[in-house]
Amino acid sequence: MIDRYTRPEMGAVWSDERRLRRMLEVELAVLECLAREKGIPAAEFRTLKALLDKALVDRVKESEGKSAHEVVGLIAAVSAEVSQKAPMMNRYLHYGLTSSDVLDSALALQLVEATDILLAGLRGVCDRLKRLARKHERTWMAGRTHGVHAEPITFGIKVAGWHAEALRSVERLQRARKVAANGKVSGAVGAFTHLPTSVEAAVCAKLGLTPEPVSTQVVPRDRHADYFHSLVLCAAAIERWALEIRHLQKTECLELEEPFSDDQKGSSAMPHKRNPVLCENLCGLSRLIRSHETAVVENIALWHERDISHSSVERIVFPDAAIALDFMLHRFAAVLDGLQVYPERMKENLERSMGLVFSQKVLLKLIDKGLGRLDAYGIVQRAAMKTWKTREQFLKVLSSDKELARHLSAKELAACFDMASYEGAVKEILRRGGVA
Amino acid sequence: MIDRYTRPEMGAVWSDERRLRRMLEVELAVLECLAREKGIPAAEFRTLKALLDKALVDRVKESEGKSAHEVVGLIAAVSAEVSQKAPMMNRYLHYGLTSSDVLDSALALQLVEATDILLAGLRGVCDRLKRLARKHERTWMAGRTHGVHAEPITFGIKVAGWHAEALRSVERLQRARKVAANGKVSGAVGAFTHLPTSVEAAVCAKLGLTPEPVSTQVVPRDRHADYFHSLVLCAAAIERWALEIRHLQKTECLELEEPFSDDQKGSSAMPHKRNPVLCENLCGLSRLIRSHETAVVENIALWHERDISHSSVERIVFPDAAIALDFMLHRFAAVLDGLQVYPERMKENLERSMGLVFSQKVLLKLIDKGLGRLDAYGIVQRAAMKTWKTREQFLKVLSSDKELARHLSAKELAACFDMASYEGAVKEILRRGGVA
Amino acid sequence: MIDRYTRPEMGAVWSDERRLRRMLEVELAVLECLAREKGIPAAEFRTLKALLDKALVDRVKESEGKSAHEVVGLIAAVSAEVSQKAPMMNRYLHYGLTSSDVLDSALALQLVEATDILLAGLRGVCDRLKRLARKHERTWMAGRTHGVHAEPITFGIKVAGWHAEALRSVERLQRARKVAANGKVSGAVGAFTHLPTSVEAAVCAKLGLTPEPVSTQVVPRDRHADYFHSLVLCAAAIERWALEIRHLQKTECLELEEPFSDDQKGSSAMPHKRNPVLCENLCGLSRLIRSHETAVVENIALWHERDISHSSVERIVFPDAAIALDFMLHRFAAVLDGLQVYPERMKENLERSMGLVFSQKVLLKLIDKGLGRLDAYGIVQRAAMKTWKTREQFLKVLSSDKELARHLSAKELAACFDMASYEGAVKEILRRGGVA
Amino acid sequence: MIDRYTRPEMGAVWSDERRLRRMLEVELAVLECLAREKGIPAAEFRTLKALLDKALVDRVKESEGKSAHEVVGLIAAVSAEVSQKAPMMNRYLHYGLTSSDVLDSALALQLVEATDILLAGLRGVCDRLKRLARKHERTWMAGRTHGVHAEPITFGIKVAGWHAEALRSVERLQRARKVAANGKVSGAVGAFTHLPTSVEAAVCAKLGLTPEPVSTQVVPRDRHADYFHSLVLCAAAIERWALEIRHLQKTECLELEEPFSDDQKGSSAMPHKRNPVLCENLCGLSRLIRSHETAVVENIALWHERDISHSSVERIVFPDAAIALDFMLHRFAAVLDGLQVYPERMKENLERSMGLVFSQKVLLKLIDKGLGRLDAYGIVQRAAMKTWKTREQFLKVLSSDKELARHLSAKELAACFDMASYEGAVKEILRRGGVA
Repeated sequence: MIDRYTRPEMGAVWSDERRLRRMLEVELAVLECLAREKGIPAAEFRTLKALLDKALVDRVKESEGKSAHEVVGLIAAVSAEVSQKAPMMNRYLHYGLTSSDVLDSALALQLVEATDILLAGLRGVCDRLKRLARKHERTWMAGRTHGVHAEPITFGIKVAGWHAEALRSVERLQRARKVAANGKVSGAVGAFTHLPTSVEAAVCAKLGLTPEPVSTQVVPRDRHADYFHSLVLCAAAIERWALEIRHLQKTECLELEEPFSDDQKGSSAMPHKRNPVLCENLCGLSRLIRSHETAVVENIALWHERDISHSSVERIVFPDAAIALDFMLHRFAAVLDGLQVYPERMKENLERSMGLVFSQKVLLKLIDKGLGRLDAYGIVQRAAMKTWKTREQFLKVLSSDKELARHLSAKELAACFDMASYEGAVKEILRRGGVA
Repeated sequence: MIDRYTRPEMGAVWSDERRLRRMLEVELAVLECLAREKGIPAAEFRTLKALLDKALVDRVKESEGKSAHEVVGLIAAVSAEVSQKAPMMNRYLHYGLTSSDVLDSALALQLVEATDILLAGLRGVCDRLKRLARKHERTWMAGRTHGVHAEPITFGIKVAGWHAEALRSVERLQRARKVAANGKVSGAVGAFTHLPTSVEAAVCAKLGLTPEPVSTQVVPRDRHADYFHSLVLCAAAIERWALEIRHLQKTECLELEEPFSDDQKGSSAMPHKRNPVLCENLCGLSRLIRSHETAVVENIALWHERDISHSSVERIVFPDAAIALDFMLHRFAAVLDGLQVYPERMKENLERSMGLVFSQKVLLKLIDKGLGRLDAYGIVQRAAMKTWKTREQFLKVLSSDKELARHLSAKELAACFDMASYEGAVKEILRRGGVA
Repeated sequence: MIDRYTRPEMGAVWSDERRLRRMLEVELAVLECLAREKGIPAAEFRTLKALLDKALVDRVKESEGKSAHEVVGLIAAVSAEVSQKAPMMNRYLHYGLTSSDVLDSALALQLVEATDILLAGLRGVCDRLKRLARKHERTWMAGRTHGVHAEPITFGIKVAGWHAEALRSVERLQRARKVAANGKVSGAVGAFTHLPTSVEAAVCAKLGLTPEPVSTQVVPRDRHADYFHSLVLCAAAIERWALEIRHLQKTECLELEEPFSDDQKGSSAMPHKRNPVLCENLCGLSRLIRSHETAVVENIALWHERDISHSSVERIVFPDAAIALDFMLHRFAAVLDGLQVYPERMKENLERSMGLVFSQKVLLKLIDKGLGRLDAYGIVQRAAMKTWKTREQFLKVLSSDKELARHLSAKELAACFDMASYEGAVKEILRRGGVA
Repeated sequence: MIDRYTRPEMGAVWSDERRLRRMLEVELAVLECLAREKGIPAAEFRTLKALLDKALVDRVKESEGKSAHEVVGLIAAVSAEVSQKAPMMNRYLHYGLTSSDVLDSALALQLVEATDILLAGLRGVCDRLKRLARKHERTWMAGRTHGVHAEPITFGIKVAGWHAEALRSVERLQRARKVAANGKVSGAVGAFTHLPTSVEAAVCAKLGLTPEPVSTQVVPRDRHADYFHSLVLCAAAIERWALEIRHLQKTECLELEEPFSDDQKGSSAMPHKRNPVLCENLCGLSRLIRSHETAVVENIALWHERDISHSSVERIVFPDAAIALDFMLHRFAAVLDGLQVYPERMKENLERSMGLVFSQKVLLKLIDKGLGRLDAYGIVQRAAMKTWKTREQFLKVLSSDKELARHLSAKELAACFDMASYEGAVKEILRRGGVA
């Protein structure tokens, strides 16, 4: 992933250094188990560990070009270093292991670490959404369906819906963390031919992983595709919210604005511009993350006990998606921190549909009065269509409808346009969305 | 979905009739709640229900062309029928509802029903996999990585891995069923303006659904995208297994064959052909199902309180994926029922790599004897490369290696080629895979 | 594809009957070539053809269940019918052919036919766009970037851009038609073992196809993936236009409305609703079509001389995409036919950004007067930000800026707000877009 | 894209420096046009150009953090530098332009440059394929369909098919280059409000681009999605070839091997391994490239005269796909350079299906002798099924079939097993594939 979208904390999880460190942790965890069995002095283990901690990264980088197989490169680098000082350790390093034991267990550790960072970022978003929803519990605005005014809602209700979706993403990431936290030390084709299952159990316990019930040479890739979807859905949630802000920032609407700093230029050409570029960027990044998913699913059907076609995909896709989503979470948090909310404009816009948003109230009132639904609908629709055309107030148009007047008094009609009757469920909706 | 891939049971779930029936169930559940409040005689409810049960489908089909909005069509059809016999019911039908209250709750019912059928099919596959794995617990074959012989495994181990993956799919479908089983009766923009939350609670309880915590006009589409992935992963699992059968049926390998009936023709041109066409078909169908996923994820970011761009996608994608996966599960069950397993051929093939599959045993033995890993690797690799070239037996090539002979006796070397040492973990792997 | 989105003309192309008819055309074209070589009386050919034309479809349908291989089924059905009346023909039917010779050549014919229908539909859209652009050559409206007012354009310019994109789609479909119009009669593995290349040449010439230069058992699937993209891009173009209409129909904007008939109901709940549901539907269908593309690309890498994993995908995806796109073209044509354009509202909206759309004019005027760009930008942006906040007219705010007054006279400033200066290129843009 | 898959030549095209240089070329081309009109001394232009060539990259990098808008940053950096030495130039830099004029025209230049590199790489692959096909014109091997032996082909035919596909990719890339080579200098909303169309014409001519007929603020994104597909299809072609090599390198088959160097280790665990890891990697990279396509197509439907949601996608996807494909082309060339072909093994494998590959010859011979197709098929299939089961030679099984003996003499039967009859079309196929 390019620097522009990489926060250092998440970038580090996917650095070559961190990856090799995780691989080393796996190798050392195995060695520690083997040491007893093979009678290796504890001092050798400590020596090896110390040497490696110091010298590893550089050595590996140097030798990488030479061997086509990177764990082999790792072993080669280590081997030269420790053969004198910890000879038995040296011999038993990677004993009975296949590269994937190390790589897949290390990948699990990286995914777990990445998920924890994502969860922290997502919780930060949740907190902000909760505050925003509470603050605007009673800030009325047009509810819109199909982009057209429907009935009134409050901005708090809208944000409570975002918060409920965010909570679902928290649950999904928590589950995904478990799905990803599986290691394997089952050897070349997963048959535990050279190391017993007890080694795997001990190594996984040490690393905080669950042993994969049945592995081939690799951890089965349905796990990774299952995991990945939680990132896609979290990105899509942010996209939905960002899309909404973009809509509400349109010049004709302008109920919200994302932050715009004093020294910012919205356009190189047009000095008046204030564009929702942060939110547009979030929409693009969600597209990017979800596009990767097909490749991750294609990775599942590997040949026999494994082929390595998944590897190039995973080298790009896991870091890119985790880094991009992490960036999205923090960018969206920043958008929320600086979000401009214009309640007056919300009210003004709500009035721009000339009271049509109350049409269902009138419809139901007529039904309560004994009209059939179709008849009632016909009366109200007729008046509404006139209102759209003439832009007269809907109440006025209805008031002059003689058929309607036979069923509703002026007072009953006016009562249908009273916002008070919309308030009933607001608090409960916020409570259900986890914000009240 | 085309007939060819539609089992009647699953096809029925997605028929127009069933869909309308589900929608009607929602409407009636709401009416039943309203009846008390509005003082509607119970007899009217029974009358309405009876009339509808009889007349609905035909009426709706007739009127469909007339109105662009299908719940409106439904209401129109019903209205004409019941206005005389259950006049109050007629008035209060759809009272306070928006189409999506009915559509989304009905969709949830369909998804639940579809999932139950899929789970039954998947459990059928699990049972067959379990039997197959047990039967071949000790049927030795080449474990292959990168398509190249690696080390021996048993066919039972391979199938135990399939079974473990199938169990993960069962869990995913069970979770997905819950994710999908959310209804909503929150009205036009989800603000409960015309009906209280208590109606939603009662209706959902009656239908076996959970009320959506915060809905807009629709149930939020992250649920549907979450749900859908469980179908994609289940299809991908079948693809992986089918791909393996295709590989093992290749002429040079021929360790397995999918069923081939006596009156079947494998090719219109070549009378000798026996092709794994069922498994190839399964691979194609998995491609199809996963391709839909992007569209389902794109459906999440609807505008404001909803737009209806998701609808056309869902009309195609949910039935198609559920029907295709259902077909896959039953076709794969049939493949397993008639699967030809050739243990002799497995043994024969295992021997075709001239004993190279034992190379790691020799490597580790040399290390145990005190050699450094790199030195040991060099000795064994040198012999192996010679074996690949000359196709002499690996044991023979190793036996003539003087350097190796300094470290291993002929007896020790021969012991590395003993299959007995591979048996240790087989039973436990099967147990971990849930088959033993 | 479901009936709802299937126009009969395109549906027929993909019917079982048409498919079998195309296959038969291929078989007969081969037979006609063979007849000479094998000395078959011409009367037999005519007899066979007549019999088949009459009896084929039913017979095939009956026998389909019996044999797993559909060309085999076709042959079986035909065989029984003609063995008495055209015995030599009967023997030589399918002689030297493999099923894919027939299937792939027939598919090419279907794709060509489908493309011709799509091209006709697309040309219908082009005509409408051309008229619409011409009519609104000088209908001024806000040009919007990032959803925010930018500078004025005309509705004619906007639609000219759609037309230019439509012309690119015409070109792409024409090219795609050629890409798809390749047949093969190269036999089982494409090696012309049983029939000479001259038969292929003659058959393809008769069918209006080009012989595939090097086929395997099938026409290589990169063709089909190449072809498919032209459908995806045509759908995406319609999506872009439909999305624009949806935006311009938003209540706060309301510069356009898609057709809404007198007896239509926009919502079952809210009688006032007029929703852009046709355009939303078009956006959804585009999502659907593009989602298929991954599967089509995955079909390329078949095994060896072919496997049949592509078949199930193609059975669904080609008809579905062609039918859906055909539907989209006609639905969009209907949207254009009934499109409501509100020039007054466009003018009104343009004025709602208080003249900010002229900011660049002022900026460039200041530069012409000798100011550095950054200084000029600073002056204009400062005034613009004040305008956004206070909603005073931009011209008024600028007029009271003392720094600006040092560089521009009131008259010069006012001239920047003159729409006349925007007119220059309108005609030429329309010409470039192919509409003037 | 990560370093591992980045060749320096292609990496450079997508470097920040090159991107800014391209943007500068556009700015300067516009300035050169403006100079005449605004009466700017030629010396100023030269001064500006010289200054920029020297100082640009560093300055821009420094100021990047400060402004959220990168062309603004570019202008700021340049402005400070040249205000003294070329004051008029400074004032008129970016005059009448919007950022996208610069960005999109620069992107077109990058795409063109990238495509030229890809075309060179692809032509290198073509040359190698041509030589390989010629060399093995008559190297017989099993043609396989469904993974099962079908009829004999030559390795030359197989590779000629690859070459024909490669030629189609050459054509596609050449067309894509034209599709991408469109620039725009139409200003803020594409209405040529501040600069006449003549400036665009002159600038595009200077840059080697075609003016976009009707642009909005951006070049329409259907071009980019059209372009992108040519990369996807080229990658998919390589995937198909790499997949074939992987199949033919399977232990049981082993007709080909990708290069394996003397100091390479195929597995960290199993010293005997020689794995087709290069080809597996190519398959994974193709998955990656095609997964991006959805995002590129989603970029088409931007809002109004543009939104910037496409930008983040394009920053990642264009470089990543171009770099990965470039890497694939060179890696595949290296695979071809070191490809091991084992004709003896091909012959040996061909014989492993016991002569079944000749079944159609026998079938057609029986038909020629007067048998009905179904009867002939029955006889040959019966013998073939026996052969599969007993692994006796097919010719022997047929010879003992009494029914067959009534129609074919032993000599006629034996003639069906003569490879000579397969040779006829080989040369012509190679010629049609462009290799002979």
